[in-house]
Amino acid sequence: MNTRIPILKLYDYLFVSIQWELDDKTALQFQESLLQRIHETGASGVVIDLTSVDMIDSFIAKVLGDVISMSKLMGVKVVLTGIQPAVAITLVELGIHLQDVHTAIDLEKGLETLQRELGD
Amino acid sequence: MNTRIPILKLYDYLFVSIQWELDDKTALQFQESLLQRIHETGASGVVIDLTSVDMIDSFIAKVLGDVISMSKLMGVKVVLTGIQPAVAITLVELGIHLQDVHTAIDLEKGLETLQRELGD
Repeated sequence: MNTRIPILKLYDYLFVSIQWELDDKTALQFQESLLQRIHETGASGVVIDLTSVDMIDSFIAKVLGDVISMSKLMGVKVVLTGIQPAVAITLVELGIHLQDVHTAIDLEKGLETLQRELGD
Repeated sequence: MNTRIPILKLYDYLFVSIQWELDDKTALQFQESLLQRIHETGASGVVIDLTSVDMIDSFIAKVLGDVISMSKLMGVKVVLTGIQPAVAITLVELGIHLQDVHTAIDLEKGLETLQRELGD
């Protein structure tokens, strides 16, 4: 079975909800398919929701940081939402501060952040 | 790996995008977890997007019909979006007309249908 992560397009935004632990292969597939969808849809913003992710390892954290940088290069705003305490701790301990990334507590707030950033 | 189908909550609605062929086990898991999320979140509407589904068998069609009936019993409006030609053909040939179900061509239109139905 294909375990791609669904990417949902609503209006001008893409929504991704990661609801299980990613393995390395799925993470890379996700990276590729998100960039592809950005290209296809001409979306102006992406919300990546991590609410259901309660653990993250260094490889996945790197892929996540990379996909954010890549999306930015493509001209898209990215907001990360729902980062759990353990994930925040791991990210900082790994030295991954995701400093230029907008974050928000949940999907609704993430969408608001995006709309504010994009001046909609 | 867990292959649950992500269910995204945005405002008062749940969004589900089915982006691969469901096997029987995943379909039943989906049924259970959607009903659970409806209960937890108190959502008033659900959009199930089938844009990426290009084939459906009788079991999956039945599970889909069931989950719609069950959601309705729980007091939730359901809209199906993005039904492809082959899926529409299969559904009708199987005698599953989903007559009381609202459908829409894409996610945006589905959301509009839901808002209209719910009088938002």
